[in-house]
Amino acid sequence: MALIEIPARRGKALRLRAGQRVRVVNTYGQQIVDTWAFNNEDLNEFMSMEHSRVAIGRIIPAVGDTMVTNKRQPIVTLVEDTSGGIHDTLFAACDRWRYESLGCAGYHDNCTDNLAAALAELGLATRETPSPLNLFMNIPVVDGHRVEIRPPVSTPGSCVTLRAEMACIAAFSACPQDVVPINGLALSPTAAHFEVLD
Amino acid sequence: MALIEIPARRGKALRLRAGQRVRVVNTYGQQIVDTWAFNNEDLNEFMSMEHSRVAIGRIIPAVGDTMVTNKRQPIVTLVEDTSGGIHDTLFAACDRWRYESLGCAGYHDNCTDNLAAALAELGLATRETPSPLNLFMNIPVVDGHRVEIRPPVSTPGSCVTLRAEMACIAAFSACPQDVVPINGLALSPTAAHFEVLD
Repeated sequence: MALIEIPARRGKALRLRAGQRVRVVNTYGQQIVDTWAFNNEDLNEFMSMEHSRVAIGRIIPAVGDTMVTNKRQPIVTLVEDTSGGIHDTLFAACDRWRYESLGCAGYHDNCTDNLAAALAELGLATRETPSPLNLFMNIPVVDGHRVEIRPPVSTPGSCVTLRAEMACIAAFSACPQDVVPINGLALSPTAAHFEVLD
Repeated sequence: MALIEIPARRGKALRLRAGQRVRVVNTYGQQIVDTWAFNNEDLNEFMSMEHSRVAIGRIIPAVGDTMVTNKRQPIVTLVEDTSGGIHDTLFAACDRWRYESLGCAGYHDNCTDNLAAALAELGLATRETPSPLNLFMNIPVVDGHRVEIRPPVSTPGSCVTLRAEMACIAAFSACPQDVVPINGLALSPTAAHFEVLD
């Protein structure tokens, strides 16, 4: 299947059958991709970071780790990672309040609205914005307590592949954060891409 | 105000006015207290661990840190901590699926159901079980990635005091976990207490 663009500062969602894989490509190397997965049969069941950390015993999933839902059911497994293995499960999706608190005047694109728009393209809506799996995002825990915001360690064309463990809706947002350097020191959000592998 | 019991394996909720403080006492020293706070005007706005970690720059709140809601509004501030300063923001509340996955046969008390029961005593219900602030819970991040489950470092009678930054419903659950040693090596959940300070 061809590469599909996640446009810069925008979101994109798709349906996956159980067993299908989706490869997320960090095309330009420094772009965070906020990632969600919802049970196709019940959008109120979704991939949950707080349940997955318990299940995998880690704050950053590694190849072979299966993320679970808020009902502790397997939903996606990380099956490939050429990005350096640094991702984030600690930070909420950005939203209008985040950019207000950073001093942005007026509307700023954000991952929360991107998720809603991406789902709306499929005729779907959710009542929640679950805390996302932030692919390629580098939020180290320092000294056991503090979190730092650092540029990604990923490189152009590196990727992560997720296998669906249930029929699900996957959604991605090419994070529009351009105030703090989580999308690279250039503060210049870019597109990313994905492809579905049967 | 007198000490109020959070019975062993059970939950308890109360209303707080803005500015009121609630002191949570680890009476017997090794008991986790899952803690939630909901906006009194809108139970769909609640203390959020994933938003608070961004706000405070830490995975464990310290004295002076203000936790925020899923709309990034201040909801409670940690104003006193004699417990050793170790708490958890990473793990979901336990639920029936957690105990099923640990091999428990039949129903097991759990913090998710305790929250619902505690709110029901006030005539309230929420559609979500937000990820709680797990007071006294010791989940260190080791080697930057792994999480471990360890007994509390707190001692009998040690306490944490939270100040309400908005009118809110606070809810507590004396965690009934008796399979893994988060409530101490004795695997013996106990009561805890709280008192409201004007």
